[in-house]
Amino acid sequence: MADVAVILGSASDRAIADRAVEVLSKNNISFDLQVLSAHRNPDELDVYVKRSDAKVYITIAGLSAALPGVVASKTSRPVIGVPVSAKLGGLDALLSIVQMPKGVPVACVGIDNGDNAAHLAIRILGVGQ
Amino acid sequence: MADVAVILGSASDRAIADRAVEVLSKNNISFDLQVLSAHRNPDELDVYVKRSDAKVYITIAGLSAALPGVVASKTSRPVIGVPVSAKLGGLDALLSIVQMPKGVPVACVGIDNGDNAAHLAIRILGVGQ
Amino acid sequence: MADVAVILGSASDRAIADRAVEVLSKNNISFDLQVLSAHRNPDELDVYVKRSDAKVYITIAGLSAALPGVVASKTSRPVIGVPVSAKLGGLDALLSIVQMPKGVPVACVGIDNGDNAAHLAIRILGVGQ
Amino acid sequence: MADVAVILGSASDRAIADRAVEVLSKNNISFDLQVLSAHRNPDELDVYVKRSDAKVYITIAGLSAALPGVVASKTSRPVIGVPVSAKLGGLDALLSIVQMPKGVPVACVGIDNGDNAAHLAIRILGVGQ
Amino acid sequence: MADVAVILGSASDRAIADRAVEVLSKNNISFDLQVLSAHRNPDELDVYVKRSDAKVYITIAGLSAALPGVVASKTSRPVIGVPVSAKLGGLDALLSIVQMPKGVPVACVGIDNGDNAAHLAIRILGVGQ
Amino acid sequence: MADVAVILGSASDRAIADRAVEVLSKNNISFDLQVLSAHRNPDELDVYVKRSDAKVYITIAGLSAALPGVVASKTSRPVIGVPVSAKLGGLDALLSIVQMPKGVPVACVGIDNGDNAAHLAIRILGVGQ
Amino acid sequence: MADVAVILGSASDRAIADRAVEVLSKNNISFDLQVLSAHRNPDELDVYVKRSDAKVYITIAGLSAALPGVVASKTSRPVIGVPVSAKLGGLDALLSIVQMPKGVPVACVGIDNGDNAAHLAIRILGVGQ
Amino acid sequence: MADVAVILGSASDRAIADRAVEVLSKNNISFDLQVLSAHRNPDELDVYVKRSDAKVYITIAGLSAALPGVVASKTSRPVIGVPVSAKLGGLDALLSIVQMPKGVPVACVGIDNGDNAAHLAIRILGVGQ
Repeated sequence: MADVAVILGSASDRAIADRAVEVLSKNNISFDLQVLSAHRNPDELDVYVKRSDAKVYITIAGLSAALPGVVASKTSRPVIGVPVSAKLGGLDALLSIVQMPKGVPVACVGIDNGDNAAHLAIRILGVGQ
Repeated sequence: MADVAVILGSASDRAIADRAVEVLSKNNISFDLQVLSAHRNPDELDVYVKRSDAKVYITIAGLSAALPGVVASKTSRPVIGVPVSAKLGGLDALLSIVQMPKGVPVACVGIDNGDNAAHLAIRILGVGQ
Repeated sequence: MADVAVILGSASDRAIADRAVEVLSKNNISFDLQVLSAHRNPDELDVYVKRSDAKVYITIAGLSAALPGVVASKTSRPVIGVPVSAKLGGLDALLSIVQMPKGVPVACVGIDNGDNAAHLAIRILGVGQ
Repeated sequence: MADVAVILGSASDRAIADRAVEVLSKNNISFDLQVLSAHRNPDELDVYVKRSDAKVYITIAGLSAALPGVVASKTSRPVIGVPVSAKLGGLDALLSIVQMPKGVPVACVGIDNGDNAAHLAIRILGVGQ
Repeated sequence: MADVAVILGSASDRAIADRAVEVLSKNNISFDLQVLSAHRNPDELDVYVKRSDAKVYITIAGLSAALPGVVASKTSRPVIGVPVSAKLGGLDALLSIVQMPKGVPVACVGIDNGDNAAHLAIRILGVGQ
Repeated sequence: MADVAVILGSASDRAIADRAVEVLSKNNISFDLQVLSAHRNPDELDVYVKRSDAKVYITIAGLSAALPGVVASKTSRPVIGVPVSAKLGGLDALLSIVQMPKGVPVACVGIDNGDNAAHLAIRILGVGQ
Repeated sequence: MADVAVILGSASDRAIADRAVEVLSKNNISFDLQVLSAHRNPDELDVYVKRSDAKVYITIAGLSAALPGVVASKTSRPVIGVPVSAKLGGLDALLSIVQMPKGVPVACVGIDNGDNAAHLAIRILGVGQ
Repeated sequence: MADVAVILGSASDRAIADRAVEVLSKNNISFDLQVLSAHRNPDELDVYVKRSDAKVYITIAGLSAALPGVVASKTSRPVIGVPVSAKLGGLDALLSIVQMPKGVPVACVGIDNGDNAAHLAIRILGVGQ
């Protein structure tokens, strides 16, 4: 049972995930890391989120970054989104993640900022202590 | 059995959908229209797409417009996406729809351009005739 | 003692705050609402945050929206930022809020999306229950 | 007789075309590849499109990317456009391709995303089977 | 025989054309005005440009504004392009017009600036006097 | 006496000017090349333009690219502007050059597109022949 | 003899100038207000700046906003620039004003923010007291 | 006692600060250089500004560049802001710095333009001589 689920939309986002994982590890936060694309593995993603007992999700994706929003639609836990700069400096992923419709919030952090995703997760976990 | 499935992410996108529907109707193309948000109705959307026998999908969404990509991940049929201008002139929806990862294509048309979604669907249906 | 501190950078952001407040009220979340600009009331803001026992902050600001980041630098609690569209469709406030440096995270939601700030706060409060 | 006509606006777009061609080849889709600029070879392009019996067009262009729209104006077949990033990260080509006027649709895919152009063509060809 | 050919991509661009026409008229410059879309009337446009003896072209278009470039590809005369703001504040039309490939130049003026198209045409005509 | 005056805002724009110069030379167009900044050499620029008998000006500048507009305000000849990409992909220079106020037109070509500045100058000179 | 010279690029910028003038007046700062376009009145502007004994300049302009930079090139006094939103939300004027080349600085304030131009002028004048 | 306080938001902004420092040194302007983040060292920054007797501040920051505005809120002296390009070409820092609310002005110079920050400071100091 991990406190944080870290989900990458693509294996190519690994460098950003490593930044988050390093911060979580240094703070002794348990986590589970998965590569599950909202577009290429929708059913596996659905199963993973519905079975997960994570308290917070960190989702990392570039381009049409649907992953954070899709996860947020399947859990009532806080979902953090990290936009990855693949094209247009990451503006595409940023807008895809942050502009969620009413009722399904995603907590967006800065472009390529895996560190802050972890720091935000730690602050959120602190609310429960 | 409808040739085209028209899916709106929100009832507020109705004006754009009306443009598509009018073009389809004038060209005697059968269609089925649904309001199903990728974020608020993920399970209903999943069931709808998996049961549908539509040959082409027209998906209409604003903001973090995940709908087109999510539908494209659940069908092997062509999926057309129409970005709706709710904020930032629709740039957010445009980038959310068009910048899909490799392997899961969406056919994006212009911002608020419901007409062209229908015209493109008609061209695609023509390939099968 | 309120669970959520709602801080507006300007009285002109009231309409966005009302959306957040309505969602919090419907969900029986206690909150305290203040108008405190990071730029015009820096000392009052400093005192307010340091004395507050809120578990989550919702900060709402437009233009050079420093408020969310400044609050995040003065508390270890989760801080949610709502960019307000005053100029450039809100792109200025969005980038001011979301692009925080490493170590001081802000959870950014969509432009003018006071609703989602509240929904995110509720999810975060749920982690502690 | 090829199912797909792949047209490059410039020989410098070849790397993007190669991605499309590879996907088409792997899927045993016949194609014909041409370098024909809408601006430098308008008459040859006109002749080529009017004589072609392709079922789907993949058009690849950067900068003021008129090629997809010009082809769409000369055929009733579906036309897919791939924006190439030469300047401004490809935003110029993206907007040139996607913002077509009513009645002349282009199916735009992501910046430099030759793969998805081919995947979309395959989905479209599948409608006719 | 008119010195300036003024071509509108759409009848909806008439207000911008009126600005150009007014400046031309005040300066006693002869002109011929046509509504010919590069996308909807490609053959008529081709015939018109090839038969025209205009010394300068003013072309006015919005969205995927291919008209200026298409005209420039069919004449060796100077072609002025006026981007019209229909979506995204006219940024789409501006980039579509100004970012022409090497060898096929278009003289782009400001967004919605029909006046300056005429003023530029007058300067160009002055070179021949 | 040169037909074309080529003015660079900075010696660092030389690579772009070389492209223009090469096209002019190949076409046997006489030109005079100067490095004169609108901001650092305003008086020399003023003298140069007022004394010049060039029929067309090619002006090349990056960043806050005031050079083309300043030259256009001091001559009644056609002035071509080339935006140079120094920051923001050249969007700053493009907007500085193209968005001229009514009555003082500049003929803007694409970012870093020295070639097209020369090709446009040649078209303009042809009007006088 | 006025401490501040307020120069508008166009009479249409008057509403923004009024904001600056009101703040200056309330603070008993003497000023001289002129409408002088860098593009339409270059010689009058040159004479005005060279004769002025203002300690600080406030320059207000939209579109290709060359005015602030041109004034800064003709005086060694501090020059404040206010971008006016005429097109593209004022992004064109902002970039035209702020991206000055090395050696010729302009102090840019926010879009349409005449108030802050005056407040900044007052701070600058305070350095001399 | 230094005339100019140069404050960097991060040690990684040093290259930009060096440009400012070089210009100040060449002009025999005394300065004090500090690395103090508005987000990571808010209390040290507060103490530093309140104790400083600098006549002008040069503040250098990237991303969510709150530093210039925060300093401007704690002093009545002129504050110059230099946006640093870390992501999105520096557009995020530019908008964070320049779009200040009424009453708290920041004098923004160009992206990465440490030179002009110093040149502007020198002009401002000249007002007091």
